[in-house]
Amino acid sequence: MRVLAFLDGTLADPDTPHIRVEDLGLMRGDGIFETVLVADGTARELRPHLDRLARSASMLDMPEPDDAAWQRAARTVIDNWSGTREFALKLVYTRGVEPDAEPTAFALGIEIDPKVLRARDEGVAVVTLERGIDPGLAERAPWLLLGAKSLSYAVNMAAGREAARRGAGDVIFTATDGSVLEGPTSNVIVARDHTLYTPPATIGILPGTTQAAVFRAAERAGWSTKIETIRTADLAGADGVFLASSVRKLTRVHTLDGTPLPDSSAIHAELAQGYENLYA
Amino acid sequence: MRVLAFLDGTLADPDTPHIRVEDLGLMRGDGIFETVLVADGTARELRPHLDRLARSASMLDMPEPDDAAWQRAARTVIDNWSGTREFALKLVYTRGVEPDAEPTAFALGIEIDPKVLRARDEGVAVVTLERGIDPGLAERAPWLLLGAKSLSYAVNMAAGREAARRGAGDVIFTATDGSVLEGPTSNVIVARDHTLYTPPATIGILPGTTQAAVFRAAERAGWSTKIETIRTADLAGADGVFLASSVRKLTRVHTLDGTPLPDSSAIHAELAQGYENLYA
Repeated sequence: MRVLAFLDGTLADPDTPHIRVEDLGLMRGDGIFETVLVADGTARELRPHLDRLARSASMLDMPEPDDAAWQRAARTVIDNWSGTREFALKLVYTRGVEPDAEPTAFALGIEIDPKVLRARDEGVAVVTLERGIDPGLAERAPWLLLGAKSLSYAVNMAAGREAARRGAGDVIFTATDGSVLEGPTSNVIVARDHTLYTPPATIGILPGTTQAAVFRAAERAGWSTKIETIRTADLAGADGVFLASSVRKLTRVHTLDGTPLPDSSAIHAELAQGYENLYA
Repeated sequence: MRVLAFLDGTLADPDTPHIRVEDLGLMRGDGIFETVLVADGTARELRPHLDRLARSASMLDMPEPDDAAWQRAARTVIDNWSGTREFALKLVYTRGVEPDAEPTAFALGIEIDPKVLRARDEGVAVVTLERGIDPGLAERAPWLLLGAKSLSYAVNMAAGREAARRGAGDVIFTATDGSVLEGPTSNVIVARDHTLYTPPATIGILPGTTQAAVFRAAERAGWSTKIETIRTADLAGADGVFLASSVRKLTRVHTLDGTPLPDSSAIHAELAQGYENLYA
């Protein structure tokens, strides 16, 4: 099932076209989005998601999102959802039909891809793919929108197809200096010696809402957490490599570039339970 | 005015929404496009544009465009256009609502931005902006879709806003080795000693339809043309620097990073006339 709501809180039929062909979100990928996990009627990490939406809007010089209106639209979708226990809530905000026109904005509830659900339990094989950027680029060149969650995700989708061609289910992008960036739609978390690591957002990646939640949960359980550069070459020797995103939650990487990684099932179970406990 | 046609040749009202919110063209910038100049009822360089559409489709693993259908849609728009003598014909082709669904495809005639028309006559001030990629990246990493004309143009739009912040009207992107790439929506042509230069598409830029037409016209007029690397540092010493695109035609760069360039009006007039003569 799907539930569509506009910012005034009105429901609409997702099977009916609502977008004009000239919308810059369509013509130019010129807009931003968030994907929020809704579980048992609760939108997880909604506050950080809305903060990140505002951050992306600022990076794209779009009007500041109306926080109350987005919360209302999210609530409308959640209240009208009668499907699976968990679903994905997309918040989409485009520049609209002209630079001077009203932005287009809607919230859309959709079911989570069964492949994503399966990978939560079974883990996923990942390939590293070159992203072609150096870690200082995002700060030098803000017009490249590195770290903004824009609608221009064609490359993220192409990377997923490249992974499939290589027999894998997901991707970790790497920078020119050999450091780890992020997945096309996830953040990378590495576990080593009872410490969790993730790279800093300043290198041009999205600050992760789920990554932050997992770190919060791990800290409660006595883990240390560090935000610092991760070398791609060090992934294979870690106690665990994980992809974090709203719909994935914490997904275990069991194979990297065709080579099985050490079994991280026990660490995964502990961290995943800690994450769930945040919302219990 | 605007004229909208779908691939079966039917006309539609562009003020009515025709796109579903779940269209991957909107949600992921996952699709491709072309912008064709129509002048006096003729779609200029339509064959190269359709060839490039097919090339982009292949790079994005999309179904091969139906050439006859696109020609029919283009013809429908042209036949129903009753506005300005010249207009922009957008061909838009998205992955549709699901990976397995039918692509979304339409042709849309729109008026050309008055700023673009003015720059054809008056020239334009340009800033160079770092693109952060090296010239070998496109061939090493095809999943980055460098050189595909995808709908994921948020960065191209952001670069234009950065230019405006710097008091300029357009952008030339540069690679990490200091070579010239392209404009966000144009190709770069440099004139020196009765020879025209443009960078090779293999460095991750769009092969230019208008650039190719300008080269063809210049060759007829006795110019030499070369496709080779251009150093950003050499732009200031050229006889002329130009941006070429369908709607821009050949637009003269009169100022680069705040410094006036040598007057290239005479060269521009000659080349622009040669280009027009192709369609006379």
